[in-house]
Amino acid sequence: MTTDPDESLPGGVTPTPGRRTAGVPRSIEWTPRETLRVIDQRALPAQVIRRELSSVEEVIDAISTLAVRGANSIGAAGAFGFALGVRGGGDAEEVASAVAGARPTAVALRHGVDDALAAYRRGGSWRDSVGVGVSLLATDENDCARIGEFGRIETRGARRILTHCNTGILATAGIGTALGIVYTKAAAGEDIQVYSTESRPLRQGLRLTVWELQQAGIPVTALVDSAAAALLHSGQIDVVLVGADRIAANGDTANKVGTFSLALAARDAGVPFYVVAPVSAVDPAALDGDAIPIELRGAEEVLAIGPDSPRPDTDVWNPSFDVTPARLLTGIITERGVVRAPFRTGLAQVLGNAE
Amino acid sequence: MTTDPDESLPGGVTPTPGRRTAGVPRSIEWTPRETLRVIDQRALPAQVIRRELSSVEEVIDAISTLAVRGANSIGAAGAFGFALGVRGGGDAEEVASAVAGARPTAVALRHGVDDALAAYRRGGSWRDSVGVGVSLLATDENDCARIGEFGRIETRGARRILTHCNTGILATAGIGTALGIVYTKAAAGEDIQVYSTESRPLRQGLRLTVWELQQAGIPVTALVDSAAAALLHSGQIDVVLVGADRIAANGDTANKVGTFSLALAARDAGVPFYVVAPVSAVDPAALDGDAIPIELRGAEEVLAIGPDSPRPDTDVWNPSFDVTPARLLTGIITERGVVRAPFRTGLAQVLGNAE
Repeated sequence: MTTDPDESLPGGVTPTPGRRTAGVPRSIEWTPRETLRVIDQRALPAQVIRRELSSVEEVIDAISTLAVRGANSIGAAGAFGFALGVRGGGDAEEVASAVAGARPTAVALRHGVDDALAAYRRGGSWRDSVGVGVSLLATDENDCARIGEFGRIETRGARRILTHCNTGILATAGIGTALGIVYTKAAAGEDIQVYSTESRPLRQGLRLTVWELQQAGIPVTALVDSAAAALLHSGQIDVVLVGADRIAANGDTANKVGTFSLALAARDAGVPFYVVAPVSAVDPAALDGDAIPIELRGAEEVLAIGPDSPRPDTDVWNPSFDVTPARLLTGIITERGVVRAPFRTGLAQVLGNAE
Repeated sequence: MTTDPDESLPGGVTPTPGRRTAGVPRSIEWTPRETLRVIDQRALPAQVIRRELSSVEEVIDAISTLAVRGANSIGAAGAFGFALGVRGGGDAEEVASAVAGARPTAVALRHGVDDALAAYRRGGSWRDSVGVGVSLLATDENDCARIGEFGRIETRGARRILTHCNTGILATAGIGTALGIVYTKAAAGEDIQVYSTESRPLRQGLRLTVWELQQAGIPVTALVDSAAAALLHSGQIDVVLVGADRIAANGDTANKVGTFSLALAARDAGVPFYVVAPVSAVDPAALDGDAIPIELRGAEEVLAIGPDSPRPDTDVWNPSFDVTPARLLTGIITERGVVRAPFRTGLAQVLGNAE
């Protein structure tokens, strides 16, 4: 792994259709040196550090420590990680299992690894798995653009947008999912104002979403997670847009912890609440939210945020995700259109179109 | 102002009826040197620093920076601050107005200052106002003990308790309000488990509640604020207990930001949700929550928590409190018993008993 600290943002950013990249580089790409290059999301916004990952161990470490994050990006990273592991002489099954286990909640990771394994079995070369990763990135970029357009149409007139965690350029190979709608609205000339939660414990909202939007010149206001209910109740929000790590067949949605609270508060305040994700986030094998595994992470993410932290042996419950019941969703915005209740039927339809 | 850093907790703690003080000193007291001695709540849990405040300016600074906090404690601090201001030659009206303005939401501060001003007018000496502060501390200590007992009876059988912010020994002159019930249950031999939210931005839950309970040997698990909805939904919580900074005549309750979210999640999960506060927190002049002023605090509380913080000019919405509608409350536990819906009638009754 090599690192490339780069505080002044790079000029040579590849333009993407529908992208507003002013200053935000691609967060994940396969390099001509046959390495996986990512922006280390842990150092932002203080530093823009790119890392080149050249072994499966490095990729697993990057995924599990959230150096690489975002459901779509870790799906592609999983495919590249598998390829690097097989290139390094690993047993295909064992490599696949190790990579897929790096984070349990996002279904995209499992899909990326499964597809990479299948391609390797068909083609016989690790390069076939690289092809899967490259293809996932291209699909993701295209999906984001389509989601942005569907979302722009769906949220027409909604000017003040509340979002959670980070679902933008830093989380995808494109303009993002929930945040992709924000970029698409802004690109269409809409006068918008984004409110971003902090998203404790790792503060992806405060560190990443705020930074992305500031780079793009889109007005953004930050708030602590627990202030969102008061903000929604105050009438200052027109629509809530969040991402998804896994969507069960009935529409129950696993996403960054705190999403469930936002959905309850939006419902109470009468504000539309949308999940925004590619169809690949749907896991038809999970009948409802109870079937989605929720990753519990370490106490240090919660405890170690300052000199006045509690005892390091303090007991902490730190789920990385929560499940928002489908009954609280206004709709699910995908690259194939907006799915509405009853979600089981609607999701089966968009999945069916895929096959 | 003098400071007394004291990492090894003091042995000479004054015992309080119903108190479980193992290692937690009084957080606020008037000294024989005619100064106000407080534990600086900003340095905990890394350091137990006592400060002696000898001027109104020091008291106002301590209140506005949250060195002194907790609705009841700042009410008494307000009375002492007024006394120190008049002793220092200040105009009584001007001093009262300055102290009462240090924090706008908690009604106890205004009451403490008003009572101190009235006593000064009656008696003609700043010492009459000191007497008000001393009396408020004694009343608070007694109220906490009674609240604890009413709460213990009301929550009998509830073993797993979720609380928010800090409402314990550090927030009152006694055992606390919501946390006072926890201490009373523990003292009665109940096998309890407390879940404490972090309470961003100033993390009073993670820094203060966790520390208090660890000192007392009561099992406590911390979680980020936004994880509470998932915790409640999981069936791991029997009751939610929170404090109050001001309760409107209809029961709408201003408390630490995030309380509203907890109430929504508790309602959705079918878990009882109680506000715990002395009757003095009720403001009959506020007809409902819309009449309660909500303090907006500085961006730095949200932004400045690590080397990876966003730009200091990032726009932040930082309300210190939110208002939980009375419709979400199971009851309000006071020193005169438990008030239930319809709250307007019930609160009028407990207030009437006072007059």
